[in-house]
Amino acid sequence: MNTTKLTELKNWMKENHTDLAYISDPGHIAYFAGYESEPHERVLALFVSVDKEPFLFTPALEVEDAQNSSWSYDVIGYLDSQNPWGIIANEITSRYGVPASLSLEKANLTIDRFDALATAFPGTDFSTDLTPIIQRLQLIKTEAEKNKLMEAGSWADVAFEIGFKTIKEGVTEQELVAEIEYQLKRQGVMNMSFDTLVLAGENAASPHGTPGKTAVSKNELVLFDLGVIWNGYCSDATRTVSFNEPTEFQEKIYAIVLEAQLKAQEAVKPGVKASELDKIAREVIESYGYGEYFNHRLGHGIGTTVHEYPSLVEGNDLVIEKGMCFSLEPGIYIPEKVGVRIEDCVYVTEDGCVPFTKTPKELQIIN
Amino acid sequence: MNTTKLTELKNWMKENHTDLAYISDPGHIAYFAGYESEPHERVLALFVSVDKEPFLFTPALEVEDAQNSSWSYDVIGYLDSQNPWGIIANEITSRYGVPASLSLEKANLTIDRFDALATAFPGTDFSTDLTPIIQRLQLIKTEAEKNKLMEAGSWADVAFEIGFKTIKEGVTEQELVAEIEYQLKRQGVMNMSFDTLVLAGENAASPHGTPGKTAVSKNELVLFDLGVIWNGYCSDATRTVSFNEPTEFQEKIYAIVLEAQLKAQEAVKPGVKASELDKIAREVIESYGYGEYFNHRLGHGIGTTVHEYPSLVEGNDLVIEKGMCFSLEPGIYIPEKVGVRIEDCVYVTEDGCVPFTKTPKELQIIN
Repeated sequence: MNTTKLTELKNWMKENHTDLAYISDPGHIAYFAGYESEPHERVLALFVSVDKEPFLFTPALEVEDAQNSSWSYDVIGYLDSQNPWGIIANEITSRYGVPASLSLEKANLTIDRFDALATAFPGTDFSTDLTPIIQRLQLIKTEAEKNKLMEAGSWADVAFEIGFKTIKEGVTEQELVAEIEYQLKRQGVMNMSFDTLVLAGENAASPHGTPGKTAVSKNELVLFDLGVIWNGYCSDATRTVSFNEPTEFQEKIYAIVLEAQLKAQEAVKPGVKASELDKIAREVIESYGYGEYFNHRLGHGIGTTVHEYPSLVEGNDLVIEKGMCFSLEPGIYIPEKVGVRIEDCVYVTEDGCVPFTKTPKELQIIN
Repeated sequence: MNTTKLTELKNWMKENHTDLAYISDPGHIAYFAGYESEPHERVLALFVSVDKEPFLFTPALEVEDAQNSSWSYDVIGYLDSQNPWGIIANEITSRYGVPASLSLEKANLTIDRFDALATAFPGTDFSTDLTPIIQRLQLIKTEAEKNKLMEAGSWADVAFEIGFKTIKEGVTEQELVAEIEYQLKRQGVMNMSFDTLVLAGENAASPHGTPGKTAVSKNELVLFDLGVIWNGYCSDATRTVSFNEPTEFQEKIYAIVLEAQLKAQEAVKPGVKASELDKIAREVIESYGYGEYFNHRLGHGIGTTVHEYPSLVEGNDLVIEKGMCFSLEPGIYIPEKVGVRIEDCVYVTEDGCVPFTKTPKELQIIN
């Protein structure tokens, strides 16, 4: 349970005159309540009152697990045969009375669930959005969070090492993914933060491709994009390596992406704007004439989820602060030719940044 | 691309006087459009017009993949630096004019996205909900879908075999999960339909527990709950086996759960109600005095997602029809003592049902 962040949320609620907050995103529930769960279509909810004790609402079959987590307030369960919204409305009314303002996560809550609440509380004001304040609370990481992200980053380094060692003539993208995840799981790292990407040769030209039965061939690049979830925190990193000697063209493209990545990483410090970082990397790639092949933003925040705020993108003039954590991942993707991406996630310090992953970024040649 | 289901959706739209349908659930987009993607926080959308050609809207970095999928209509992309809602509103207006009625997936669409659309089309009626018709379209599986579910089920049988073979003194839950997923991935089965559960001894008393470093011990039960995604269709099955001889108590609990599972499975046929199937299994467990330890519904539908309609639960009087596919998964969970669940997913035939998984359900003793 994150008491500090719960208090910060309650302070914000006081200032914004909302008496009850309904947190619906399972990742955000894990962040505040310390209870992790994927409820699928069942209802999992955290209700935080501005001045009374909060409560957690879970499917009946999870009540015991929630009680055994670090959450120390009430856990209310509901059976599959019960209507959760009737129970929720009763709990709210009996604990807090009818709320004058009930704030919601508008970027997470679905219309049907909103309708169910609005029907139960017809006089309540639902206009306050929790999404921006939760994004804000998660934006600046504490020292403890940084350390967890560091550990998650170290596991990504372990994953790269396994992957690079497994490369040999004839091994397929899928076999490389299998080997990486197998060795991680045997060490207790049970969840990747997204589906591991291993893409060989021209397959890497699709930024979100799918590992298949393609075997790696000599004189080809192989792209690894991966991350783990460790103690609730994510890592995300990309390395592109060469199996035997790269061609001149591959080396050239790689050098451009590396220059873009390093320049952006060197520019990170408090005071710079998110959009400026994107621009620094983009201008390097554009200066060599490959701008059209870098078709995504420079990066995204990382924490308890693999994609969170800030977004490093044109138009986002958010000022970078100490404690923010995000990815820097320029790429060049030329269809049917080549795909290169290099990515580290970093933690912003007082005068720069520290990456969570330490695997070298110079082009590695695997023989 | 599923032309048949797109036509059925358009027929329903005609009857329900809605000119445009916005499908937002990535699983449902895969179902209708044949393009699979996990867009994270980016916008992925399928717009189906009642009388004109539909279009798919994706992040720019996915446009090429979408065009290379089985989808044969337009794909419109947006860059991370662009506001997707402006582009969507323009596309809709230029293709179809301002819609009088735009129907939404209320069980999927978030409030902020709904607000963005409602702002773009202030005179449009958004009251029609697509969720029930999509559930209905997915409820009755075609012969081709049944075959895909059969294949996915066979991979679950392969997974059980790997797991059972790997059981030995000292092997941990996590190592069993690692071995199962490794061997599946090496055969090209890259995605499980949910996190594989292997729970040993009393750990299995938590229906949604997490595999940890607990080693299996002799004279203990081990629960495996797993499934794969194969060609876009899911499997989901549970077996509980005994490592060496079970105790009398374990045997007794197992026999009760098995009796409940078999009785429910024998009762499946067109005409029976979903709630009746739940009741049949529940009454068996209650008759032995363990009713309170069966704290979830009997089952859920399965198809392109691992949890879909119908829900086999008290109060759901939906009448079962030929072609429906769902799980039958009674369990008994006694905290700190024992956990047993047995689950098959089945396909409803004219006069009964056929399970997708063939691994025997009599208590297997692993030596």
